[in-house]
Amino acid sequence: MNTKIILNDDVYKIVRHVGLDAVMDEMISDLTAAMIGFDHEKYTIPVRQGFQYSKPDPGLLEWMPILAADTQITVKIVGYHPLNPEVHKLPTIMSSLYTYDMATGHLSTIVDGILLTALRTGAASALATKVLAKTDSRTLGLIGCGAQAVTQLHAISKVVDLDKVLIYDIDPAVSKTFISRTRFMDHRDIELIESDLAHLVGSADILCTQTSVGVNDGPVFDDHGLQPWTHINAVGADMPGKTEIPNTVLNRSFVCPDFLAQAVEEGECQQLSRDAIGPELVEVVKNSKRYESLRTGNTVFDSTGWALEDHVAMELIKRYADELDLGVSLPIECVSIDPKNPYDMVSRSPGDGVGESTAKA
Amino acid sequence: MNTKIILNDDVYKIVRHVGLDAVMDEMISDLTAAMIGFDHEKYTIPVRQGFQYSKPDPGLLEWMPILAADTQITVKIVGYHPLNPEVHKLPTIMSSLYTYDMATGHLSTIVDGILLTALRTGAASALATKVLAKTDSRTLGLIGCGAQAVTQLHAISKVVDLDKVLIYDIDPAVSKTFISRTRFMDHRDIELIESDLAHLVGSADILCTQTSVGVNDGPVFDDHGLQPWTHINAVGADMPGKTEIPNTVLNRSFVCPDFLAQAVEEGECQQLSRDAIGPELVEVVKNSKRYESLRTGNTVFDSTGWALEDHVAMELIKRYADELDLGVSLPIECVSIDPKNPYDMVSRSPGDGVGESTAKA
Repeated sequence: MNTKIILNDDVYKIVRHVGLDAVMDEMISDLTAAMIGFDHEKYTIPVRQGFQYSKPDPGLLEWMPILAADTQITVKIVGYHPLNPEVHKLPTIMSSLYTYDMATGHLSTIVDGILLTALRTGAASALATKVLAKTDSRTLGLIGCGAQAVTQLHAISKVVDLDKVLIYDIDPAVSKTFISRTRFMDHRDIELIESDLAHLVGSADILCTQTSVGVNDGPVFDDHGLQPWTHINAVGADMPGKTEIPNTVLNRSFVCPDFLAQAVEEGECQQLSRDAIGPELVEVVKNSKRYESLRTGNTVFDSTGWALEDHVAMELIKRYADELDLGVSLPIECVSIDPKNPYDMVSRSPGDGVGESTAKA
Repeated sequence: MNTKIILNDDVYKIVRHVGLDAVMDEMISDLTAAMIGFDHEKYTIPVRQGFQYSKPDPGLLEWMPILAADTQITVKIVGYHPLNPEVHKLPTIMSSLYTYDMATGHLSTIVDGILLTALRTGAASALATKVLAKTDSRTLGLIGCGAQAVTQLHAISKVVDLDKVLIYDIDPAVSKTFISRTRFMDHRDIELIESDLAHLVGSADILCTQTSVGVNDGPVFDDHGLQPWTHINAVGADMPGKTEIPNTVLNRSFVCPDFLAQAVEEGECQQLSRDAIGPELVEVVKNSKRYESLRTGNTVFDSTGWALEDHVAMELIKRYADELDLGVSLPIECVSIDPKNPYDMVSRSPGDGVGESTAKA
C-alpha cells in the first residue's frame, strides 16, 4: 500500500523529455476535452477555502478538492505569498497535489503543484482566448511579468498567431528579465516589447493581467483607450478584495468566470451583480458556436482557478510519469496487517512492514 | 527546499524504540498542556468539510486544517470507509498529515495519520475521562471493538485505575480478537470480559462507543440500567446522521463536545438543542476544578475529532523523528532557481535541481 511520489526531478525529466511545447499542447487539449465532456453529475467541486493571514507576512493557504467520476479525489493545497520571490527566493504560488482513492481513502499520489498550476492557469486562458478573442488577434499585452506571465504567453501563443507582445510590470527589473525568461519561445516569430501601460492597454487585442496587486489596491490599469474588441484574461484576482480590472470595463464586457461561486467571492466578479455575469467558461467551451458573436466585443475571462484544471494537470503528469517509469513508491500509511489492530507494529519484526519500500530515488 | 517524509517504518521504529506506553503517556500529557495553554487568538480551526459518497462503497473524505500560532498550518486529510476491513483488509479510518510553513507555503512534513488518529482519539477520551468520570471508576465498557477501541482502552488505562473491562461488538468475531489485540497491556492487572450489551451498559463506570453504526441506525445501546454516575466517551459519531448515544441519556447528561460547531453537525450534539450542550472539553480541562461536581452524575464527551489533537500528535511524532534521526528528505516542489521562471528546468542540466535528494530510505 505505497504512495507514489513524483519528485521535482521527475517533473523536470518529463518536461525535458516531452518538451515544453508538447506538454503545453497536451495540457490545452486535455483541458479542452475535459471541459467539452464535463458533466456536473460526475464531479463535485466545492468553492476553495483557506486561511488568510498577515503574519509573519501577508499570505494565503487554501485547499481545492475535487471528487472526480466516483473514482478519485484530488486535493490541491496552494499557498499565495506575494513576498516570496523578494524575501525567500521562492515562487509566489507554491502548491502540492494529492490523489486519494475513493474506494478506500488511500493516498495514492503526491506531486508538486507549482509548475502544474502555472501550466493549467495558462491553458485555461488559452481556452478562453480561443473561444472569446477576435480570430485575427495579433497583439498580446501582459500586465505583471512574474511566473504566471510566462505560461500565459506560452499557452496563448499556442492558440493565437501572435506577432507582438507588449509587456509591463510595476517593477521595471521584472519586465526586463521577462525577455530572457521566455527565450524558450525564440523559434516563434514574436516580437517582445517593453511598453508603458497606456500604450499596452490601447494596443492589445488580448490582455492578460497576472499581478500581485494588494487587496483593495486595484485596478491595475485605467479604463482609457482599450480597443472595443479586446479580450481580457484576468488571472491575478484570487482573494476577497483583490481585483485587477476596472469596474467600467467589466460592466460593458461579457464576463465569463471559470467557477461562478468562487469568482463572486475572490475574482473580478466581486465587482459585479449576478445578472451582469455571463456563463462559466465550461459552458462557453461546450457551446462555442453559440457564443461566437461575442468575439467582436469586449470579453473578460475571470480566472480564479478551478479544481478541474488541477485534476486534468495531475492526470497528465501521472500519465507521463507512468510512461517514463518515473517517481518513487514509498510506504507512508501505517496499515497494520490486522486492520483492527493499530498497534501490531510492536509485535512485528523490524522491516516486516506491510508496504515494502521500492524507492528508486 | 525538501519535504520531510516520515515513512510508516519510521513510525514503527519510533513506537518500538520509545515504547507504546511512553508514546501514549506523552500524547496525553502534550494534549493536556496544549488544552491548558489553548488560546483562541492563536489558533484558527475551521469545522472540517469533505465529500460524503455511496459509490463505489459508502465513504467520506474530509480535510481538517489548523492554523497554529502564526507559524504553521497542519492539514489532516482523513477517510472513513467502514467496509475497508472486510473488503480491502485496510483500516476504516485512513489518513495523512501535512505541515505547511506559513511564511512561504512550503510543504515541510508528511506523515501517516492512521496511527496518530487512533492515538490522539484515545488521548482525548483520556482527558475527558480524567476530568469528568467518578474518581473511583474501576469498570470500563467498550461498545465496538475495532481499531479505535484499542487506543481508547490503552489511553483510559493511563488515567484510571481500571480493574475490569467489558467488551461488546455487534460481530462476536471482533470482540474475540480484541483480547489478543490488547495483549500489549498484559502487564496491567485488568480483566477483559466479553459481555452482552445490557450487562455491559449496567456495569460500566466509564463507557466508550466507537462503532461503525450506519447513518440513522443509532443508538447503539438502550437507555436501560445505565448507572447514574457513568461517564461516556462517544467516539463513533463523525458524520451527519450518525449517532451512538440514546437521546434520553444525552438529555439528562452533562454533554461536553470537543468542538461545538462540528459536534452539532456530526456528533451526538446533532440530537440536542444548543442550550442543552455544555462547554467544550478545552474549557473543562482549563477549569477542571469548576466542573468537579459533575463527576457524580452522567457525563458525555462528544468526540468528533478536533484538529488541535492532530496538530499535537504530529508535533510529537516530528519531535521523535528528529531525535532519532528518522524520515527521508525529498525534493517535491518544483522551485526554480529564478522564482519568476517556472520553466527554468529546461535550461538547467539534469540533476542540477534546487533541492538535492538526501533520501536515507
